Amino acid sequence: MKRIKVSNNVIRRMPRYLRKLDDLSAAGVERISSGELGRQMGLTPSQIRQDFSCFGEFGQQGYGYNVVALRGEIAKILGMDRNYTAVLVGTGNIGRALVENFSFEEYGYTLKAAFDINPEVVGKRFRDIQVYDFNNLSGVLTELKPDVAVLCVPKSMANSVAKEIVASGVRAIWNFTNTELQLEDNDIVIENIHFSDSLLALGYYLSESLDEAEARAARARRES
Amino acid sequence: MKRIKVSNNVIRRMPRYLRKLDDLSAAGVERISSGELGRQMGLTPSQIRQDFSCFGEFGQQGYGYNVVALRGEIAKILGMDRNYTAVLVGTGNIGRALVENFSFEEYGYTLKAAFDINPEVVGKRFRDIQVYDFNNLSGVLTELKPDVAVLCVPKSMANSVAKEIVASGVRAIWNFTNTELQLEDNDIVIENIHFSDSLLALGYYLSESLDEAEARAARARRES
Repeated sequence: MKRIKVSNNVIRRMPRYLRKLDDLSAAGVERISSGELGRQMGLTPSQIRQDFSCFGEFGQQGYGYNVVALRGEIAKILGMDRNYTAVLVGTGNIGRALVENFSFEEYGYTLKAAFDINPEVVGKRFRDIQVYDFNNLSGVLTELKPDVAVLCVPKSMANSVAKEIVASGVRAIWNFTNTELQLEDNDIVIENIHFSDSLLALGYYLSESLDEAEARAARARRES
Repeated sequence: MKRIKVSNNVIRRMPRYLRKLDDLSAAGVERISSGELGRQMGLTPSQIRQDFSCFGEFGQQGYGYNVVALRGEIAKILGMDRNYTAVLVGTGNIGRALVENFSFEEYGYTLKAAFDINPEVVGKRFRDIQVYDFNNLSGVLTELKPDVAVLCVPKSMANSVAKEIVASGVRAIWNFTNTELQLEDNDIVIENIHFSDSLLALGYYLSESLDEAEARAARARRES
C-alpha cells in the first residue's frame, strides 16, 4: 500500500469508524452519507471526507458510502487482513482478562502463546493458548516470530522484558504495564494502554463538569 | 477554578506531564526548562508552554519550572485533590484486575464498593472492597453517592447498567465494556478504554512500519 504520513488524530478515529460501520451493518444499513455518518458520530461531514481522503476515494458523489465496502477499506488500513500473530507476556489478572475476554481474532490477530514466571501456571492452557515458561521467552519468541507482544508483566519488569522481546525480533508491543517503555530502537511500535492517564482525563472532565454546574447554580442564585 | 474550554489534545497530554514530573521528582530533579522537558517527552518547548498557559503561569523566565510545584498544579487540574470516590460494577477478569492491580488511591480516588451478579462472589472482599449484590445497585449507589462508576460488565449489559447508574445520580463512568454507551444525558462524563481501538491503532502503525521497511528494501535492491 502506498503510504503518506497521516496525522495521529486521523489514525485514532479510524477504529471508531470501524465500530460505527459494524453497528450500521448489523442494523441492515447499506449506504450512508458523510452528513448522516457525521451526525451519528459527532463529526462534521467535511472532517469525515478529509479523514478518508488520506487513504483513497471511498465515497461517491450523490451516493455516499457503501457501508460494507468502506468497512473493508478501513479494516485493510488498520492491518486486519495481514494475519498478524501475537503472544501474551504475563498471565496475571490483566493478561488473563485479555486472553479470556478479548477477542483477538475479531481484529485479525492470532494469539499463539502466553508466558508466565509462575511454575504452577506454566504448561496450562488458557482458552487453547499454551503457557510457556517465561525463562524460555527469547527461545520461543525466536521460534514463533510473533508480530506483536502483549506486555502484561509487573511495572518493575516492564523495561527489561521489553528489551528482551525486541532483541528476539518482535517489532511491536501492546503495553499494559502502566509505565513508559524506554527502548533504544525507535522503529519498534509501542502502543500504550495507560489506565492512569485515562482515569486522570476522566478526573479533568468530571471536575470541569462539576465546576460548570456550580457556576451555573451560583449565577442562578445571584439572579434570583 | 475559573475555566476556559481547553482542547482534548491538551487535556490528554496532562497525565503524561504528570508521569514525567513524577519520574523527575523520583530522580531528584528540582527544576526543568521547557526545552529539556520537551526533549525528554518528544514535544516542542513552545507546545509545552502553550499547554500550560491554558491553565495559568507555571514557569518563570530564566528559571524554568519547579518540578514539585508544577506537578502540584497539574494534579489539581486533573482533579486529584477532589477526593473523588468510585465503585466497580462487575468483578470479572477486568474488574478484578483493576481492584487488585490498579492503585486508585495513587490518583486521588477511593474505591468504596464493588458489585457483582454472581452470588458466590457477593459478600466477599477484594482488597478491602466489599462486593455488593448487583440487584441492589440503585439502592447502594443512591446511598454511597460515588462520583465515578467503573463499568466492567459484559458488553450485552453495558447500556442498561449504565442507564441505571446514571439514574442513581452518578455523574461519570469509566467504561471498560468495549462498547459505545448511548446515554440520553449529555452531561454525563464517559471515559472509554476501548482495547480494540488501541489494538487496531497498533495494527495501523505496525503495517506502516513494515511497509516502509519493505519500500526501503525494494529501493536498495533497485539501486544495487
